Amino acid sequence: MNILIVHAHPEPQSFCTAMKDLAVATLEGAGHQVQVSDLYAMNWNPVASAADFQVRGNPDYLTYALEQREAAKNGHLAPDIAAELDKLLWADLLILNFPLFWCSVPAILKGWIDRVLVSGTCYGGLRFYDRGGLAGKRALLSFSLGGQSHMFADEAAVHGDWEPMLRPLQRGTLAYVGMRVLPPFAAYHVPYISAEARGVILDQYRDYLLGLESLPPLPSPSLADFDRGLNPLRQEVPA
Amino acid sequence: MNILIVHAHPEPQSFCTAMKDLAVATLEGAGHQVQVSDLYAMNWNPVASAADFQVRGNPDYLTYALEQREAAKNGHLAPDIAAELDKLLWADLLILNFPLFWCSVPAILKGWIDRVLVSGTCYGGLRFYDRGGLAGKRALLSFSLGGQSHMFADEAAVHGDWEPMLRPLQRGTLAYVGMRVLPPFAAYHVPYISAEARGVILDQYRDYLLGLESLPPLPSPSLADFDRGLNPLRQEVPA
Repeated sequence: MNILIVHAHPEPQSFCTAMKDLAVATLEGAGHQVQVSDLYAMNWNPVASAADFQVRGNPDYLTYALEQREAAKNGHLAPDIAAELDKLLWADLLILNFPLFWCSVPAILKGWIDRVLVSGTCYGGLRFYDRGGLAGKRALLSFSLGGQSHMFADEAAVHGDWEPMLRPLQRGTLAYVGMRVLPPFAAYHVPYISAEARGVILDQYRDYLLGLESLPPLPSPSLADFDRGLNPLRQEVPA
Repeated sequence: MNILIVHAHPEPQSFCTAMKDLAVATLEGAGHQVQVSDLYAMNWNPVASAADFQVRGNPDYLTYALEQREAAKNGHLAPDIAAELDKLLWADLLILNFPLFWCSVPAILKGWIDRVLVSGTCYGGLRFYDRGGLAGKRALLSFSLGGQSHMFADEAAVHGDWEPMLRPLQRGTLAYVGMRVLPPFAAYHVPYISAEARGVILDQYRDYLLGLESLPPLPSPSLADFDRGLNPLRQEVPA
């Protein structure tokens, strides 16, 4: 497989960065090709703006997704976006590796999503979910957090279940562009645990990475279950 | 009320910007004090980093939340963060006004959340949800999107229900720091509708804003329902 790891942590000595380094070593060791986009090291610009297009379809009014579509077609995307999009299109598997900030990705990684998942290439019109532009690829979230697993165990837990908390990323983003989303890897309670306990998590992460190819993807919508207006098709009830 | 509107749209002529302008006029007209943080106009830096602290508690290893806690206590937050935090502490109501990007806020606004909701001041330890540092304040999401309302009508809809899709923002962020979260205002299908239809939405938005003070907040967790380890307390079943 070709694997792109998009990594976003402000501290190069962090546990999260160790997870990224372990992923590179483990996945290369298993014979895969790996590229890394280390967003902090790259000084990645996360702000979607008119400057993302070398030529504007409509220079007087910015509709970001429409300009993406034009620019992707005509080779007018800003060079930093074009370079990341090339890596994404090369990859069979996308790993987003990050510390959980406010139950989501850090802003620098949100800006990778905003700018690189380009309309026209990754989605557009009725090309989303299982008909998305990146169908055939897989993706997963790999993150560290301060919380503990019981705080996200199910809907009775203090923060509720993981599925809704991660829904904008796993369904609204990764599945939306057509990728099959593998179950996430969460490294719990990282700021509060011993070096030994961190070592255990890294061992678990290695095992998780080596077992990726047999992990079944999470359920996600199929457009076959909706009409062209995107209303759910009724199940026929037998008489 | 003191009201802070944090607005994030890259196009000053956008409908979303018109929503922000209408909110300022309507809320000031109703006798409230309003401040606006227009993140694109301010060239807001969304990237959480070591540069956010004028003095570091630990200059050798960045634990972002710990540095926030120290810096907030000792007056060492970067000036752009300190200015936004002052506005937030002044506000009785926070309005996040934005175009929905990937079922979430644009990166520039995610970075306002990452950098301004400072540990120690806004939350910390067991000070979250109804015991959060911003308890007593209210907050709401006000956003424009390309999708239509039936696409988020309930869990059978193509994108599922709004509650899980907005959970990281409404529960994981706004409720987490103690704010009561009011039902959101969604401006649907904006890129595809007539000027007349847009006018109807603006009228609905004005009515929504004028009725805010009687809107019941969304349900959110209470720490009284959890033990000190944040395990759910069992309901006693009467014998």
